[in-house]
Amino acid sequence: MKGLLIVISAPSGTGKTTLVNKLMKEIPTLEFSISCTTRKARPGEVEGKDYYFLSLENFEQKIENGELLEWAEVYGNFYGTPKDKVMEALQKGRDILLDIDTQGALQVKKNYPEAILIFILPPSLKELEYRLRKRATDDAETIEKRLIVARKEISLASKYDYMIVNDRIETAFEKLKSIITAERWKTERIKKHLNEVTSDTEILKLLES
Amino acid sequence: MKGLLIVISAPSGTGKTTLVNKLMKEIPTLEFSISCTTRKARPGEVEGKDYYFLSLENFEQKIENGELLEWAEVYGNFYGTPKDKVMEALQKGRDILLDIDTQGALQVKKNYPEAILIFILPPSLKELEYRLRKRATDDAETIEKRLIVARKEISLASKYDYMIVNDRIETAFEKLKSIITAERWKTERIKKHLNEVTSDTEILKLLES
Repeated sequence: MKGLLIVISAPSGTGKTTLVNKLMKEIPTLEFSISCTTRKARPGEVEGKDYYFLSLENFEQKIENGELLEWAEVYGNFYGTPKDKVMEALQKGRDILLDIDTQGALQVKKNYPEAILIFILPPSLKELEYRLRKRATDDAETIEKRLIVARKEISLASKYDYMIVNDRIETAFEKLKSIITAERWKTERIKKHLNEVTSDTEILKLLES
Repeated sequence: MKGLLIVISAPSGTGKTTLVNKLMKEIPTLEFSISCTTRKARPGEVEGKDYYFLSLENFEQKIENGELLEWAEVYGNFYGTPKDKVMEALQKGRDILLDIDTQGALQVKKNYPEAILIFILPPSLKELEYRLRKRATDDAETIEKRLIVARKEISLASKYDYMIVNDRIETAFEKLKSIITAERWKTERIKKHLNEVTSDTEILKLLES
């Protein structure tokens, strides 16, 4: 059956990385999409594994040709999701996970309406701030900036298909997993792959009638 | 939060009753809807617990007034789902389970589009026939009739929101449970009850903006 394109967004500090890593571990059919970028490769980064490294010209070309499901500029570098690679993987029945910001997520939904958009909310903005401070990876100004961006992202959450509050990692994870399982059995999706739902030719004929 | 109206249909012999009983046990917020009927009460049946027993006139009145979410005639008796009772329970946050045939299910969807329709398929019609024979509760003619009805019901399965094959009871059950969990976190549903998703007034304001 065709795979699912799952898009997860969350403000920094919401616990998205933990949830995503748990998902990757528990759902063997799930794969990360590999982005392309104009950023220079860092030592140890492998072409086609960490990123597809492109020149600015090539990246521009891809945008113009509509070859990117979404793209964004971050601190002077461009990042994008190659459409052909994702579509190919989905056709092979692999589920693809995109971990991108709200702007990218809404671009994906526009270009591929079957995508499943899941937004992960922090229990509160106070809690988010607390988590960011506790993490101690950012200085006060960066945290302040992250909180401003978080507010903007949250204001777009209602455009997502699903919204989950990450108050406890285990319950949030169960919800995430349930969403992925449930989406697989939507008639809307199954309709195009009925022969993979049942091998009984008689049932198949009835379903298609 | 407003409850979910879950409608499950399956051909006789598909294992629906086992699945439904397991659901009722595992999901404490889930309740069976009590039908009304023109059938006479059998010894031990309690009004308002097993059924609401109505006269034919009262039943007709309810149909005319649009007070039934769905109704059907079975062997000369009428059965229906009272709309007011279901709506009241949903408003109180209880999830309501309806175990009805395809005709009824499609009536419910028409009258209450938020209803979640789940169809449970047998692995094959051969297997269904085998299960019906093994059950040994019906004679050959009844089994034959059930198989004819099963074909008709299956041909309407693609009008449901979800389709599950009951090849193994445990996996089918997990899918059912996932569907119910996932549906709770659909933005579409949550939008009307954002204050129950988060108690953080700042996040609430952002979501509503």
